[in-house]
Amino acid sequence: MSDQKITRRKMLKLSGMTIAGVAIGASGFGGVAKALGYDFMQVDDNTSTKNKINFYGRYQSGISTPVQKHVYFASLDTSLSTKEELQKLFQMWTPLAVRLTNGEPIGDSSSNAYVPTVDTGESMNLDASNLTLTFGVGPSLFDKASFGLTSKKPSELKDLPHFPKDQLDAALCGGDICIQACADDPQVAFHAVRNLIRAASGKVTLKWAQTGFNSMPKDGGTPRNLFAFKDGTVNPSKSEELKQTVWIGNGESKGWLTNGTYLIFRRIQMHLETWDRTSLKGQEETFGRHRDSGAPIGMKNEFDQVDITSTDANGKLLIPENSHISLAKKAKRSILRRAFSYSSGIVESTGNYDAGLMFISFQKDPQAFIDIQNSLGRVDRLNEYITHRGSAIFACLPGVEKGSYLGENLFSTL
Amino acid sequence: MSDQKITRRKMLKLSGMTIAGVAIGASGFGGVAKALGYDFMQVDDNTSTKNKINFYGRYQSGISTPVQKHVYFASLDTSLSTKEELQKLFQMWTPLAVRLTNGEPIGDSSSNAYVPTVDTGESMNLDASNLTLTFGVGPSLFDKASFGLTSKKPSELKDLPHFPKDQLDAALCGGDICIQACADDPQVAFHAVRNLIRAASGKVTLKWAQTGFNSMPKDGGTPRNLFAFKDGTVNPSKSEELKQTVWIGNGESKGWLTNGTYLIFRRIQMHLETWDRTSLKGQEETFGRHRDSGAPIGMKNEFDQVDITSTDANGKLLIPENSHISLAKKAKRSILRRAFSYSSGIVESTGNYDAGLMFISFQKDPQAFIDIQNSLGRVDRLNEYITHRGSAIFACLPGVEKGSYLGENLFSTL
Repeated sequence: MSDQKITRRKMLKLSGMTIAGVAIGASGFGGVAKALGYDFMQVDDNTSTKNKINFYGRYQSGISTPVQKHVYFASLDTSLSTKEELQKLFQMWTPLAVRLTNGEPIGDSSSNAYVPTVDTGESMNLDASNLTLTFGVGPSLFDKASFGLTSKKPSELKDLPHFPKDQLDAALCGGDICIQACADDPQVAFHAVRNLIRAASGKVTLKWAQTGFNSMPKDGGTPRNLFAFKDGTVNPSKSEELKQTVWIGNGESKGWLTNGTYLIFRRIQMHLETWDRTSLKGQEETFGRHRDSGAPIGMKNEFDQVDITSTDANGKLLIPENSHISLAKKAKRSILRRAFSYSSGIVESTGNYDAGLMFISFQKDPQAFIDIQNSLGRVDRLNEYITHRGSAIFACLPGVEKGSYLGENLFSTL
Repeated sequence: MSDQKITRRKMLKLSGMTIAGVAIGASGFGGVAKALGYDFMQVDDNTSTKNKINFYGRYQSGISTPVQKHVYFASLDTSLSTKEELQKLFQMWTPLAVRLTNGEPIGDSSSNAYVPTVDTGESMNLDASNLTLTFGVGPSLFDKASFGLTSKKPSELKDLPHFPKDQLDAALCGGDICIQACADDPQVAFHAVRNLIRAASGKVTLKWAQTGFNSMPKDGGTPRNLFAFKDGTVNPSKSEELKQTVWIGNGESKGWLTNGTYLIFRRIQMHLETWDRTSLKGQEETFGRHRDSGAPIGMKNEFDQVDITSTDANGKLLIPENSHISLAKKAKRSILRRAFSYSSGIVESTGNYDAGLMFISFQKDPQAFIDIQNSLGRVDRLNEYITHRGSAIFACLPGVEKGSYLGENLFSTL
């Protein structure tokens, strides 16, 4: 983008890209990190690729990007101990992420059969599939004293408080670093995460991971969750709304987070068996919307304004006070929802479906989510049908401009 | 099909379809089973639907059907106790399966808001998505004395023997009944199974379930598994081959299984971390094929004939004797493979990917699979990289002709 300055030193490095590019292919897997370690400027968005979302930009993709069909969400812990090592990790990941979102392997394959291939190869013959890679850093990363990043930790970046109905499983919570890989193909999303982790072998370990999907209506409308309700009807989308709700502006947080945002992840099990025994009226009063149309109760169309004070002829509220949308709206906070459904077999102990919602939201202020969740509290009628099992918060890095790398400002003096 | 005779009694029932059709919508969920119980003849394939695979036919769909992008595979146990109850279950499921493969809800929605809806609704606005539903019955079903089906149990229908490297988890094995739902959309596949189980509430319970995917190359070729190798290159496809390998002919088993087949399911965890540390040469010698092209080692093209005796200039076998394809070929047996990949987060105890292959094969004689597996034995180089965690066998019912129902001959005197 126009406001990005490329320094002379960077330009000199940039001019060496061809040589470095060749070196990667020949060096095999062991050499990926070495070959790519400092050459984060060499790879460019291939804008002629089909089904391609650009990696470079003011903001990371995968946030305001129209939601894709599949996600592989990985939470990582790191065993690194110095800031410089961490910086190199993100520098190494940057060109790999560009290649992956181009729909390219992270390195040439088959050049030397006696070493492991640079790329694991399972996305061969698939295209970019609108892959986006979104990187974030968790509160625990800043708590490792050896990184010396304590002063860079924003006060908002802390584990979410315990909410009334939480039944969290520690194995599905937290993490030092997250990579959200969204794509219209599940193998492309998985391939991306697998190769980023593999290239960082010995530096990061997988803490937890979750796959999810969105099934897009043929008419292009809002996808439905597994309760059959449209999910994500009220979402900021215009540039100005996104600035108000999502993107951290200059001076609104630590400097390195300008143009970043916060990602909140909740693994919400849906008790489909209980839901399926509930009348349609009960279901609609639980959400506060009509199921089929998605309209607020008493209204006709999905995008009709929600008025939680409107009443019927007898003066009774049309949208029950304890419905999900009424309580959520009362918080008067705005977040960007970007959820996926999941269905992972059964919960062995109960025999019920292990299925539900990968709730993912983006907001410049995590308190917006906390306020909404507190407003839902113990009262939300939806509580009867859901249980929160996993939880995490990550500060999403600002977007990367060509010539820079992921999180550069975190490591600079900003 | 032309050889299907419709009896006069069936025709009389068929003429009542409109009335029964209305009754379903009005009766709410509680009435689905009742309303549809005996009206298995009323629903027809809607051949004008887009992305639609017919339900009716000599053979069940989902077997020789070109593989779809997604699968939801459910193994059920039943708490029913008489043959008549079991018969009614399959009679009830038949019209629901036709509706589902038509891309229709199993009943009208929203007709009475004070009862649960007939259909759970999450596939609204999605199309048929090439949904296929394949029903099978497991050995345990015949072992329940109260069904009186002991004499109908084919001798081939028994739990697979223990294979040398098996590390099976009982929670992922066996089952009385299976439903394989394949579709090009994950929500459509899940919706189908959920609604079939829900309509059979109190009659069946979910024993285990597994989701999987196939990522189709843009050039239309064979999909790659998570080891990046093409999976399913050698597969019977011509009508005559399928008759030899897959479809049980008249007199080849119990009469009720004519036009049926056996489904073998194996949940095979792939140790991606170990695989990814192996050289390309080692990987190719493990399978006996080149990774990128899929050709047998020493050949150029994927569909080149596999000759396990061909040697290089020094007389050394090109395809190692302990490679997967060499050993599999030595068994001289043919099966129809129809596999999917899976990726279900991580194995908590190890932190490794819980990912791999949902191996599904169809064969008229389960011994074909057993012979191949025994030939692989302890020798197969692939053993180092995989562990079998789940296992099941089901006798797949014959296809259903209009006017009949799933498994009719199992309950008749044939």
